Amino acid sequence: MNLAQIVADIAAEMAAEADRGRVADYIPALARVDPAHFGIAVVTHEGAVHEAGHSETPFSIQSVSKVFALTLALDRIGPPLWKRVGREPSGSAFNSIIQLESERGIPRNPFINAGAIVVSDALLAGHDARETIGDLLRFVRFLAEDEGVEIDGEVAHSEAATGFRNIALGNYMKSFGNLENAVEEACKVYFHQCALSMSCRQLAMAGRFLMNDGLQPGSGARITTPERTRRINALMLTCGHYDGSGEFAFRVGIPGKSGVGGGILGVVPGKASIAVWSPGLNERGNSKLGSLALERLAERTGWSVFTP
Amino acid sequence: MNLAQIVADIAAEMAAEADRGRVADYIPALARVDPAHFGIAVVTHEGAVHEAGHSETPFSIQSVSKVFALTLALDRIGPPLWKRVGREPSGSAFNSIIQLESERGIPRNPFINAGAIVVSDALLAGHDARETIGDLLRFVRFLAEDEGVEIDGEVAHSEAATGFRNIALGNYMKSFGNLENAVEEACKVYFHQCALSMSCRQLAMAGRFLMNDGLQPGSGARITTPERTRRINALMLTCGHYDGSGEFAFRVGIPGKSGVGGGILGVVPGKASIAVWSPGLNERGNSKLGSLALERLAERTGWSVFTP
Amino acid sequence: MNLAQIVADIAAEMAAEADRGRVADYIPALARVDPAHFGIAVVTHEGAVHEAGHSETPFSIQSVSKVFALTLALDRIGPPLWKRVGREPSGSAFNSIIQLESERGIPRNPFINAGAIVVSDALLAGHDARETIGDLLRFVRFLAEDEGVEIDGEVAHSEAATGFRNIALGNYMKSFGNLENAVEEACKVYFHQCALSMSCRQLAMAGRFLMNDGLQPGSGARITTPERTRRINALMLTCGHYDGSGEFAFRVGIPGKSGVGGGILGVVPGKASIAVWSPGLNERGNSKLGSLALERLAERTGWSVFTP
Amino acid sequence: MNLAQIVADIAAEMAAEADRGRVADYIPALARVDPAHFGIAVVTHEGAVHEAGHSETPFSIQSVSKVFALTLALDRIGPPLWKRVGREPSGSAFNSIIQLESERGIPRNPFINAGAIVVSDALLAGHDARETIGDLLRFVRFLAEDEGVEIDGEVAHSEAATGFRNIALGNYMKSFGNLENAVEEACKVYFHQCALSMSCRQLAMAGRFLMNDGLQPGSGARITTPERTRRINALMLTCGHYDGSGEFAFRVGIPGKSGVGGGILGVVPGKASIAVWSPGLNERGNSKLGSLALERLAERTGWSVFTP
Repeated sequence: MNLAQIVADIAAEMAAEADRGRVADYIPALARVDPAHFGIAVVTHEGAVHEAGHSETPFSIQSVSKVFALTLALDRIGPPLWKRVGREPSGSAFNSIIQLESERGIPRNPFINAGAIVVSDALLAGHDARETIGDLLRFVRFLAEDEGVEIDGEVAHSEAATGFRNIALGNYMKSFGNLENAVEEACKVYFHQCALSMSCRQLAMAGRFLMNDGLQPGSGARITTPERTRRINALMLTCGHYDGSGEFAFRVGIPGKSGVGGGILGVVPGKASIAVWSPGLNERGNSKLGSLALERLAERTGWSVFTP
Repeated sequence: MNLAQIVADIAAEMAAEADRGRVADYIPALARVDPAHFGIAVVTHEGAVHEAGHSETPFSIQSVSKVFALTLALDRIGPPLWKRVGREPSGSAFNSIIQLESERGIPRNPFINAGAIVVSDALLAGHDARETIGDLLRFVRFLAEDEGVEIDGEVAHSEAATGFRNIALGNYMKSFGNLENAVEEACKVYFHQCALSMSCRQLAMAGRFLMNDGLQPGSGARITTPERTRRINALMLTCGHYDGSGEFAFRVGIPGKSGVGGGILGVVPGKASIAVWSPGLNERGNSKLGSLALERLAERTGWSVFTP
Repeated sequence: MNLAQIVADIAAEMAAEADRGRVADYIPALARVDPAHFGIAVVTHEGAVHEAGHSETPFSIQSVSKVFALTLALDRIGPPLWKRVGREPSGSAFNSIIQLESERGIPRNPFINAGAIVVSDALLAGHDARETIGDLLRFVRFLAEDEGVEIDGEVAHSEAATGFRNIALGNYMKSFGNLENAVEEACKVYFHQCALSMSCRQLAMAGRFLMNDGLQPGSGARITTPERTRRINALMLTCGHYDGSGEFAFRVGIPGKSGVGGGILGVVPGKASIAVWSPGLNERGNSKLGSLALERLAERTGWSVFTP
Repeated sequence: MNLAQIVADIAAEMAAEADRGRVADYIPALARVDPAHFGIAVVTHEGAVHEAGHSETPFSIQSVSKVFALTLALDRIGPPLWKRVGREPSGSAFNSIIQLESERGIPRNPFINAGAIVVSDALLAGHDARETIGDLLRFVRFLAEDEGVEIDGEVAHSEAATGFRNIALGNYMKSFGNLENAVEEACKVYFHQCALSMSCRQLAMAGRFLMNDGLQPGSGARITTPERTRRINALMLTCGHYDGSGEFAFRVGIPGKSGVGGGILGVVPGKASIAVWSPGLNERGNSKLGSLALERLAERTGWSVFTP
């Protein structure tokens, strides 16, 4: 298997695709991203990095950040977090408030918006939003081994200015007693976390611990326990693509987490950490070409978790 | 790793468990099953069989049969089946009719009851229910390489006599045009399929093709393609335990399909086909000790799909 | 007030309307009705009858029959009926199954389909469907003082042949124990009741007891108690037009019950019993011109229950 | 009919009731109200006032205020208000957010919380919250012809401090573009409106225009048009008691609007404006004894709108 060639081929194929999906336009900073972009970076278990396309261009990782926030929150709070957020696929759109009502303020999983806001609230844990955001940024820089990871201030500001639905989710959960801090603080952390700006290379680097039982390959630092690593991967597989998670598992067959900015982080335990980026989304809100690229990669490498 | 010892240990531990869940009681044939039963059978990729407990006692496999029916239906009909049933976790209880209304008669996935009734309807394909039931029985016997697999007539009859909700699901989908045959015929196939009676050993044998890219290990017969095998495994992981699928993936980390009779079929690609059985159910309707046994087995063998 | 003139004017105006709504087409017998038809009949408290348009043409009264079935069932069973069916507006479409799930098989009110099937089941009360249908037909003929009221066999047959959703509702309620008889029997009564064929004149005559505290004006026969009459009127006002009941109360302001055949029965306590008919429906499934005709009639006569 | 005696009897009967329901306790100012209180005031069309019990004690009118806010908003904005809020019963609990999601931010009617927040937003119309609250207070004082009507500052403050669910509703509708002003401003108006403090006598006085085709009986001032009056009454009947509106129409049969403070305003067109108050609520959140008192009053006076 010539992985470098596979990666290059896929980038070339994606560059040639006519139907690229629809770029998110709810905030200007996302709306103006060129739909022609496509990037891919694969970091293998052995430490090789294969990249192609716009793999060094930073983009708004948006909900991909939920993986890192969850990892940090589990480290800080541990199992009690699971009293406040579930572990089941949601079966409905990513910002749905319906389930919250019937399940009394407990979000289905940490990867839908409501669940991520609970995680943000848990991360605060006595600190203010500013400190917490700083902690999270430092954590992601450490994971990526790259001080160039930034939070995009314009995006964070736009998220806050237009984030009525997320603020609604926060207030709704607060009404059930499932936020410990002020709604504004929890949402502030959430909006900044979504504004993390990373390239495919940085993102794939940051995801390495997930393919490696919780250890950072280079430094050997333990990021989290093997059990938690396994479980985060399981959550990515069952819940990582909102209402399209089943389809992604069916077609691609590896744990992944998508963001509305067009990025997807994919994890192949023992084999690779992968980041793809293409800004156009499919009808479920996941990167159209990003999903297709991962499907082809899984096919050509045999990297499904559902195959021997 | 001494797999024989691990299997024996788990059976001993399960025998000693006080809290065994609640046996399904909606039909007499299930209600009178002794909650003290526990069986386990593990068939490895190399062909070794490890068993313990009541591994030779036949039980009603119920919804575990949905895996075999789906495999046969995909073989007969292929991709068009996916126009009539989805591939997403349902996010609600296994017999929920709510989702069917909002999604106009297309069930979420083939492992909830509505989806399985569509699969039964698809299996009919011009034959009558009797023939189709015969075909399915022969298919499962072939998979298990065991002519002793039977359909329990009393169970089939009771399912039909009390299956108002399933008949409602069938009629409801018929009203949206998503059943091709008479509701009675589709339901008859479904009720008989649920009444398949198998031991853990037979069930683990029947599941071997799923760990082996679609080939039956002994005979070398191709049961289905590698791609379909991978995809059936993915569906088992995301949808195999109804509203507890996320939890099962989180805790156990292997594709599995449970039935209300207390059986679970588990698949570890390239490693093993596993069947466990304990009649008492947890609050999500999945075998309580069966789930726990698989969690311990995965832990002690390292057989999660989410770990290197 | 010249009521004869008002009635004639409204019929003339309705005849001239271009936008007549969409005729129900789920069964041939309804689909072939000419959308140009419009009929109106007003029977006053004093016994005068004013008619215009196709007021003598029989049409399928469909769900308007639910008023008569409820009256008869309350007579037979009394208050225990209210343990099996509620008295609240449904807040969703007339054939919705969602509410049945969350409220465990108890329909919201007797005027949605599920509620009417419970009423049919209650009417059976030890008799078979044939007898019960006969009883209901005799009751409606007695109310209308007209032996010409018939059940349209073709319609009844078509309802049964296409009524998968109603059969689903029946089975679903049966699964919750809320039907006492076989689903087929209850549905048979329901399908025949819906097939009642009446003219506006017959329908307005049959509704007279509702404006008159439960007494039939001509014969002086007591059809039901004043309290029940009041309550049936209340149910018609809050639930008589499915998901458009609030709008009808808002615009027209009198108790009414619509049917998918384009008929509406309206009741003005102490003043009049009214029947209108125009086969084209609005987007809520209620007669478009029938609703408009009643709005104009209420306006010109001052017959709202919400005005001094 | 001796109305004075009927009113006195009912007050005596209510004083003797043992089961008084459960006082709302979500804010301290409501929680500490004595459940033994019961008041009633009936203002007849002729101008007579009959009172009994604690009819002069001010209480928090809460959602009863929605009637006055709607009247004022219709006066200011007219029919365009109905593009932003519906006229159908909600079929679910008073603070439900589910319907808002499926109907894209348009509340079912102006008497559920979401609908009332839209009305508050509409009332702002270029003014700030302070002015708008002042306008509304002046309007209610004018209706009641009583300068003693006040807004309870403690209640308003507590509503705001605990009103997460209402703030969630506001943000949610804002996300659909159905609030024109800042969520904080609209909610401020809403929270102050709910904090209106009135006695039964004041409330019954304020409601007189609703029984009188929109004219204030004493002054002869036109409060609103006859058509709007009729329609507000219709909305009270179909939607005035949240998920218990059908039951109230069924049992009592007059337009009414309840509040969580235990007050109910009842309107009998052409006959009377009625206010009752008893702080204990039934399971639907409506005054338990208030409902019973109105049922008895309607029974003994024959004041149902569904009777000749």
